[in-house]
Amino acid sequence: MQHTNATGFGVETGSLSWPTGFRAYTGHGGLRDQGDDISVVASDRPAVSAAMFTRSLFAGPAVVLSRAHAAGRELRAVTTLAQNANVATGRQGEANAAEVVGRVAALLGIDDRQVLIGSTGVIGRPLPMDTIRAHFDGAAGLGPGAFGAGPLDVARAMMTTDTRPKTAVRTVGAARIVGVAKGVGMLEPNMATMLAYLFTDAELPPDDLDTALRTAVDRTFHCLSVDTDTSTSDTVAVLANGAAGPVGTAEFTAALTDLCLDLTRQLASDGEGATKLLRVTAGRARDEAQARRIAKSVVNSPLVKTAVHGADPNWGRVVMAIGKNTEDRDITPDRVTVAFGGIEVYPEEPTPETLDALTDAMRQPEVAITLTLGLGTAEATVYGCDLSAGYVRVNADYTT
Amino acid sequence: MQHTNATGFGVETGSLSWPTGFRAYTGHGGLRDQGDDISVVASDRPAVSAAMFTRSLFAGPAVVLSRAHAAGRELRAVTTLAQNANVATGRQGEANAAEVVGRVAALLGIDDRQVLIGSTGVIGRPLPMDTIRAHFDGAAGLGPGAFGAGPLDVARAMMTTDTRPKTAVRTVGAARIVGVAKGVGMLEPNMATMLAYLFTDAELPPDDLDTALRTAVDRTFHCLSVDTDTSTSDTVAVLANGAAGPVGTAEFTAALTDLCLDLTRQLASDGEGATKLLRVTAGRARDEAQARRIAKSVVNSPLVKTAVHGADPNWGRVVMAIGKNTEDRDITPDRVTVAFGGIEVYPEEPTPETLDALTDAMRQPEVAITLTLGLGTAEATVYGCDLSAGYVRVNADYTT
Repeated sequence: MQHTNATGFGVETGSLSWPTGFRAYTGHGGLRDQGDDISVVASDRPAVSAAMFTRSLFAGPAVVLSRAHAAGRELRAVTTLAQNANVATGRQGEANAAEVVGRVAALLGIDDRQVLIGSTGVIGRPLPMDTIRAHFDGAAGLGPGAFGAGPLDVARAMMTTDTRPKTAVRTVGAARIVGVAKGVGMLEPNMATMLAYLFTDAELPPDDLDTALRTAVDRTFHCLSVDTDTSTSDTVAVLANGAAGPVGTAEFTAALTDLCLDLTRQLASDGEGATKLLRVTAGRARDEAQARRIAKSVVNSPLVKTAVHGADPNWGRVVMAIGKNTEDRDITPDRVTVAFGGIEVYPEEPTPETLDALTDAMRQPEVAITLTLGLGTAEATVYGCDLSAGYVRVNADYTT
Repeated sequence: MQHTNATGFGVETGSLSWPTGFRAYTGHGGLRDQGDDISVVASDRPAVSAAMFTRSLFAGPAVVLSRAHAAGRELRAVTTLAQNANVATGRQGEANAAEVVGRVAALLGIDDRQVLIGSTGVIGRPLPMDTIRAHFDGAAGLGPGAFGAGPLDVARAMMTTDTRPKTAVRTVGAARIVGVAKGVGMLEPNMATMLAYLFTDAELPPDDLDTALRTAVDRTFHCLSVDTDTSTSDTVAVLANGAAGPVGTAEFTAALTDLCLDLTRQLASDGEGATKLLRVTAGRARDEAQARRIAKSVVNSPLVKTAVHGADPNWGRVVMAIGKNTEDRDITPDRVTVAFGGIEVYPEEPTPETLDALTDAMRQPEVAITLTLGLGTAEATVYGCDLSAGYVRVNADYTT
């Protein structure tokens, strides 16, 4: 079923399928005790591609290899290993990543350089190559019929500490865009998010696709922070196989941005230990960079995050988080306003009549903090989540 | 009793007293339900002073007033209000801070401009001036004999969510330096820490005292981070009344630095929810700024902090936290080493023989992470604490 969402883009309900010409496969490669942990999404024809990767100095072999392959701008498949990041694993880690890529290429009868590989999970552990090899030996006997996995299956096979799979779809003209993503912690993407793959049957020139991706990512994944920690594995890629014919670039960019925002919100709400989505908008800033810097400072403040967790409209912590940006000397307390859920709390205190509404707003699954700086017209919105004891629980003994 | 500590400075045990010529007073001004919440430390003669304050854009009236008074470099008294930061309280907040200063000056028979005022606690609440006035009305009838409070009493009266008072003492020649401090959360000092007051009977020229303070703070409080949040109230001040005669500036600076390091460690171990002190040393860096930036990135990483909480030697998170400093492009994974408690974990994995020692090191009340970058000779050490569910508990409903 298809309908139009609030922003005017076609979305779909019901069982989600791939865009024309894409198919997928998931299986168990022994990376975790049970459940599928290897996935492959492939296009049955060459696809134009664009990709962005983590800027971490410790980017893993999967990122290094994928960056080289993505430079060719023509990818046919994306494979993902869950549970193990294969990062800081030395020369053997590089060889292992290359071997997995070779296995996937052989399975599909395509060139190694047409395969993108993603790998997330524990850092510093060698991949279990024995079970991975056994898995691909078995898969080699399967025909194309084995490629019956849908986007939800793939999103599930990509999960690590994610509590739910993340998928989204938008239509643009005759074409569709389907996205799958994962990521819960170590999540303040820098140039891309943990893993987000976007597949479309739209036809676009490579440069336009690249620009569309950069535009979309800048306004979505780059505005996301769960815990200020940038992953060593962040990857976002889009594959466009053209099966549905050409679409307008502007229209495509808008749909892609809307879809990425959908995934960004799903990632934020499923942040490790998160019980609430936190959306911070900084308005009336001097420029967009300032707006984003201030909004990020608020969304990342552990004191703001814990206050939101406790449903406490503690605006003092919001002004503190604005105030610690000591390079923004043009920000002065007398021009700043702060609102929770649309109800101003600073400098005007909430009236007794609005107190109930304020309490109610703080208890919603999505809490909005809106602040204005009184300096200009620029605005930015960023996404994060509250900080709960659950975050500590998940992370205090993840490897042991 | 006096003895010499490991770094060669005289420290004292037993009941702590003020340096010659200082006395103090604490009382209950209704800022909290029970317990002393107002303190005054005064010198019976003019004292040379130096001070540093928060760089927060939302610095409160206490900081604004104190900054003006400290510019005179001759302070006679320091007063502190606990539990209420008197920040973002508008013109009334400014008037209230000035009134408290005036009351303290009248009590001591000194000039308003010789009084430094500190105020920490909740942001955005007016001071309870009725009970504060009643308190000073009562205190006005007291003679100098009422000024019998010791450093521990003052440190206690300054506490907010601190679980223990922080004091330290060092001797330098015939003089002594006594410090009191408070601070547990909203604690990544920028130009000074929450509240740290240093009193000495040493005699020093104002410029030397100022330089000594800046040198000491740069190597101690500036290397502390509990939660990346910079307070609106940070203040550190030193008063030197000269009662013990002149001392060498170099010797004084070294003793002051050692004392401030002592207080810094006390602040880190009593960080909100902290169960462990975390000490991160980055060595073989290009320059000191890089060493400090990398060490801070590790000590502030929520994933490193939770791993330390769980006694998990998860070095993968340490390399992640190094790697997210994407401007340090000269850092390469093949030159980096990481050790926990002196036991290398990357790139050499711990041997089975050292595994027990590693587990043991992770369970100590102080955990040391040492990393080297292989680029130069600079080094920096920073202090923080683990991240526990206790931090969330303390902060999820602090005002409600």
